[in-house]
Formats: sequence, C-alpha cells, structure tokens
Amino acid sequence: MTYIVEIKVMPLKELLDPQGKAVLGGLANLGLSAIQDVRVGKNITVQVTADSADQAKELARTAAEKLLANPVMEYFELDCRPA
Amino acid sequence: MTYIVEIKVMPLKELLDPQGKAVLGGLANLGLSAIQDVRVGKNITVQVTADSADQAKELARTAAEKLLANPVMEYFELDCRPA
Repeated sequence: MTYIVEIKVMPLKELLDPQGKAVLGGLANLGLSAIQDVRVGKNITVQVTADSADQAKELARTAAEKLLANPVMEYFELDCRPA
Repeated sequence: MTYIVEIKVMPLKELLDPQGKAVLGGLANLGLSAIQDVRVGKNITVQVTADSADQAKELARTAAEKLLANPVMEYFELDCRPA
C-alpha cells in the first residue's frame, strides 16, 4: 500500500533562526505587527510503499535521520496518512 | 490571545520539483528505494496575537499571500491552534 508521510523539519527551539527573524522584519514592514515570532523550516512530503502505516513511518524516520534533518540544528516530526 | 499558525508552502503539484528529485536520488543511494516520490517545501510557524482563531488565520493568510508564498509556483495551507 502507498502512504504519504509529511516530515516537518524545524530549527531547534533553543537556537536563533535568522531566516525567521528576516521574515518577521519583512512582515513588520508590511504592517503585520500582530505577528510576533516566525520560525522557518522545511516540509518534505514523501510517498512510500509499505505494508503498514507503522512501516511507512519507520522508513520516513530513517530518511529524516540519515538525510533530511541535521540533529545538531534541527528536529523533525512525522505525520503519516494513506495515499 | 496568542495563536500558533503553521503555514505549509509547497510547490504546485503540476510543477517539477528539482529539489525533491535530488532528495529522491539521495534516498535511493541510501537504499531507501521504497520511497517513490519526494516534494520539498517550506514550513513557516508564526505566533500571532489576535482576538480569535479566525482572525489569527486571516492574518497568517495575508502574510502568506503577501510575502511567504509565490502563487506562480507554490500553494499554501494553514493550520491554527492556540499557543
């Protein structure tokens, strides 16, 4: 069966996020001062063939750990659904 | 009240995603051939002060339309929750 797994990779909460700070400045210039904090990360959507949702999630976790997320600077979250 | 809005910005489904294709190649080299398709986009988490969740979502939508997403190449989805 085919599953869609969304891998959300975000900068660790303890770290500064210069890209987010730049976006925040841009939003303030547009008059959107109600927005107080911005953090920018990646969203990677993968299509996986697996026997079960758990197996699909495990494959996506391996992909995130080996290639997609840098654990020194980023954490990731997974969300799995049938395709 | 403070809300967290997650803005997911992804390349339009009709368009090629060269970054996703590159990741797919990398995953194949790692032996993860069960992963068949990859699309890479952005995830922007904003913290918004607003009277209601609807207002927070509307502010985030304005931010996405004016600054964060390029409608020629990208679409976006919003997800709002209390902070």
